[in-house]
Amino acid sequence: MDSPEEAAIRTADAENVPQHGYTANKEAYLRRLKRIEGQVRGIARMVDEDKYCIDILTQVAAVNKALHAVSLGLVEEHIGHCVVGAASEPDPALRAETIDFKVKEATDAIGRLLR
Amino acid sequence: MDSPEEAAIRTADAENVPQHGYTANKEAYLRRLKRIEGQVRGIARMVDEDKYCIDILTQVAAVNKALHAVSLGLVEEHIGHCVVGAASEPDPALRAETIDFKVKEATDAIGRLLR
Amino acid sequence: MDSPEEAAIRTADAENVPQHGYTANKEAYLRRLKRIEGQVRGIARMVDEDKYCIDILTQVAAVNKALHAVSLGLVEEHIGHCVVGAASEPDPALRAETIDFKVKEATDAIGRLLR
Amino acid sequence: MDSPEEAAIRTADAENVPQHGYTANKEAYLRRLKRIEGQVRGIARMVDEDKYCIDILTQVAAVNKALHAVSLGLVEEHIGHCVVGAASEPDPALRAETIDFKVKEATDAIGRLLR
Repeated sequence: MDSPEEAAIRTADAENVPQHGYTANKEAYLRRLKRIEGQVRGIARMVDEDKYCIDILTQVAAVNKALHAVSLGLVEEHIGHCVVGAASEPDPALRAETIDFKVKEATDAIGRLLR
Repeated sequence: MDSPEEAAIRTADAENVPQHGYTANKEAYLRRLKRIEGQVRGIARMVDEDKYCIDILTQVAAVNKALHAVSLGLVEEHIGHCVVGAASEPDPALRAETIDFKVKEATDAIGRLLR
Repeated sequence: MDSPEEAAIRTADAENVPQHGYTANKEAYLRRLKRIEGQVRGIARMVDEDKYCIDILTQVAAVNKALHAVSLGLVEEHIGHCVVGAASEPDPALRAETIDFKVKEATDAIGRLLR
Repeated sequence: MDSPEEAAIRTADAENVPQHGYTANKEAYLRRLKRIEGQVRGIARMVDEDKYCIDILTQVAAVNKALHAVSLGLVEEHIGHCVVGAASEPDPALRAETIDFKVKEATDAIGRLLR
């Protein structure tokens, strides 16, 4: 017997090959993360070259902002895909349980971003 | 034609006039907001009595945290109710459009909280 | 024997009657906090009147922003007054210890705001 | 005329060419930033391997937290070094102006982190 989430994931895996919300924009996410990785490397270079603390903090704030944009994108696609996907489960009891699980999971993830 | 579940959801929508996700927990939200209002008044009193800045900042951080908890609760109920509700729209074209709108709207609201 | 912070506080208390950084702007802070208190009451009213969750979340984000502005103001005046004040302590050993204590205390407060 | 302490501070300023607060902990900062860079690369790998969105969001939240810790460290050393350093400027008019500038600059940087 599966938990609702396992069932939901397997259904998604079997039916939709690109199975997560973000998969359609995968290349764009990879480019953004590559750029963020470069920004973090740039901050390390600034520390190494004894740059002024305030200028380093400005770059840290820019990375925070770029990461926020990535996470909001993932949240949007997660809600639009995985949460809404749970709502199309035909068995009403399983549907209610799956939706609750997915919504709780998404909200917990958002809560970790807010902190 | 509706499935029995879809009919049930639409009946529920028609019957529960106060239709938002948070309505079931309205009293709890009102109590939490009352408490936050009292915390803000307490901060004003600390300023008025020239309390130490750090102690005031600690109270401000506590209000931030309490507001975060309220907003996460609202986000959870919004996703579970309004977004998932959009997924029960029977007309597929209208459903897709409604879901997109609701998901974008929820993500924008989360984005304003993250900032 | 006093701890450095107790000594610093007592010196400040004795010499500068308006002893915290924010005291000069006390009226402005009280007005801003009064307005925030009203905003929180407005959110409670929206919940009570079953307003749309997204509109409530927008108001919560506005309160967050207003609180951030208040806390940044307090941080600025705390650093400019209490931390810099510690730097004017004449005994070098006590000065170093007081500065360390004040800086750590301010950073911890900022850390609680960041979370 | 300087007090001996003031003279000592100025000598220290002249001798330590890389004069920022974080310089003493440079290696530790470089290690932490290296680790964060690796975490960002790990997130890109998760996206590339179509990992579950919630697990990716959890990793993004961990990077946010690690960056917050780095920025708090920089803020602490900036206040303790550059802001307090401004307070040792012997000319009182220039000192007041320098302190104001440094405190404003630090607060603006903290404000960018809060957003």
